[in-house]
Amino acid sequence: MSTLTTLNDFRKLLAELPGPSLTAENAVRTREPQLTKPPGSLGRLEELSLWMAAWQDNTSPKIDTIEAHVFAGNHGITAQGVSAYPPEVTQQMVANFENGGAAINQLCKTFDVKLQVHALDLDTPTADFSVQPAMTETDCVKALRFGMDQMGESVDILCLGEMGIGNTTVSAAICHALFGETAAFWTGPGTGVEGDVLAHKAEVIAASVLFHKPHINDGLDVLCCLGGRELAAITGAIIAARINRVPVLLDGYVATAAAAILNGFNGAALDHCQIAHTSAEPGHIKLAEALQQKPLLDFGMRLGEASGAVLAVGLLKAAANCHNGMATFAEAGVTDKD
Amino acid sequence: MSTLTTLNDFRKLLAELPGPSLTAENAVRTREPQLTKPPGSLGRLEELSLWMAAWQDNTSPKIDTIEAHVFAGNHGITAQGVSAYPPEVTQQMVANFENGGAAINQLCKTFDVKLQVHALDLDTPTADFSVQPAMTETDCVKALRFGMDQMGESVDILCLGEMGIGNTTVSAAICHALFGETAAFWTGPGTGVEGDVLAHKAEVIAASVLFHKPHINDGLDVLCCLGGRELAAITGAIIAARINRVPVLLDGYVATAAAAILNGFNGAALDHCQIAHTSAEPGHIKLAEALQQKPLLDFGMRLGEASGAVLAVGLLKAAANCHNGMATFAEAGVTDKD
Repeated sequence: MSTLTTLNDFRKLLAELPGPSLTAENAVRTREPQLTKPPGSLGRLEELSLWMAAWQDNTSPKIDTIEAHVFAGNHGITAQGVSAYPPEVTQQMVANFENGGAAINQLCKTFDVKLQVHALDLDTPTADFSVQPAMTETDCVKALRFGMDQMGESVDILCLGEMGIGNTTVSAAICHALFGETAAFWTGPGTGVEGDVLAHKAEVIAASVLFHKPHINDGLDVLCCLGGRELAAITGAIIAARINRVPVLLDGYVATAAAAILNGFNGAALDHCQIAHTSAEPGHIKLAEALQQKPLLDFGMRLGEASGAVLAVGLLKAAANCHNGMATFAEAGVTDKD
Repeated sequence: MSTLTTLNDFRKLLAELPGPSLTAENAVRTREPQLTKPPGSLGRLEELSLWMAAWQDNTSPKIDTIEAHVFAGNHGITAQGVSAYPPEVTQQMVANFENGGAAINQLCKTFDVKLQVHALDLDTPTADFSVQPAMTETDCVKALRFGMDQMGESVDILCLGEMGIGNTTVSAAICHALFGETAAFWTGPGTGVEGDVLAHKAEVIAASVLFHKPHINDGLDVLCCLGGRELAAITGAIIAARINRVPVLLDGYVATAAAAILNGFNGAALDHCQIAHTSAEPGHIKLAEALQQKPLLDFGMRLGEASGAVLAVGLLKAAANCHNGMATFAEAGVTDKD
């Protein structure tokens, strides 16, 4: 990956992503109907087993090593008064993650997931995208590569999340630039703005996307202009996971917006990713629909920090254990339907 | 509980069920907003913490000891050709549970849940309810008490499920008798009947409910007439859990139908129960709506054997760990919104 020095290098890479393993798919499809249950009766658990095995290139789904990566960034756009919390909370929450006090720490403990937290230049926020591009190409490539470089090859499942005061504004701007509609369609309360501040947030997003539109040709241009280093790192992590054959659980609105950057390059670019949950942030379900995905959980969460992704880990573990550990009709001496 | 010898004894008991602990609710409501996250941002996880603590009568939710109980029964109604599998599969699946080969074994292993399987007189199916009551009052009381007697007081969370060829027919008949509509409205494929057999299943249910209707005054009459020992045992287990202050996760259509027996006696009789998932059996979501509950998961499962209930255990563990283990704003030195 040392040759990735420009956004064009990433464009070339995205045209040649590896696909799912048909050998693995066939192995799972052969075993599943032999297990002691009516065909299809484990519903989406059966789909998840197939999905894990196919993207892991393994004849059975593996769940031994699960990692959650939380990327944190700060955003110049907060100067426009779009957030309920001040930007210093990003650094404070990173310290909270490192000290074990946040929700994600408890969730990782619950599901035996290894947590890694990455703060990206918090003292130097990206530029205010209402007046200039959030990142230069060099900055953007650096953040993409940073995300790629954090990914290990011996991971079975990867959970991706973020922390960054202001980043639902970034995400709504990215969605508006990628998928059209109005800015208000994609704009929500984030950590808790409402009324006039919420209306102002949508207006800032609308004006900013209009300002950058002449310079935007594809998703990577969107990423540079509207940015967010933590979003670029997530985008990079998703690419690396694809190459390393690691299925990905995406957290909420921000992580999914970072994934959506890749959608236009290759219709299958996100097929190794599942949206773990439907966030209460109203843009998220619209974004999931735009990506033709049905999130695994709908729990009204809107915290970020990979919380929804890690909450869904139990579902993947259940799927893999059922597929790998159940007896067949023959082994158990149970009369099959046929 | 030694005084429970008639259905009237149960009717008296149901009028005097204990309520939630307001002290516990207050403790949870006081701590929750102090935790390092925007208010409400853990969505339904926060509701689950409150619910667990309130019904456990504990100032914080507990998840140390979790049990799944699977009750199995056989049904005379299978003589009417309403099932895709023969009745001997009930006994074979009980053996499969005991040998660790079934989905529920893998799910209990995944979420560290203790499994207990109870076969209720499998060699003596209940009577064919198309021609006579499924159970006598004595039989019904015996099965209710059996379910109660299996419940331990030192359990934090109870998962309830079942196995019994023919019992989606029983469940649809119970729903039709309790909530009206047409028999077809409540009738689905179960383990896999379709076409003419599915239409026949609905006709048998319609005729049977019409036949018993003159003798039915309340839910316990419905239980006797349409029966299912495993359903009566689940009904009893739900009552015992309420008295023992144990929150309950209900599995799919059959377990929820067994719970619905209690609904008419006391509007709050099921408030210590959560429907764990929406089954693919089409009557289940209708039944959840009739009981004004929103299931926790929607995974297209239709296996029974407590599989959906145990799959939801991870969600309760996550909720309790977040509530109990997160740092407060003051502890973590994070700037609060206010």
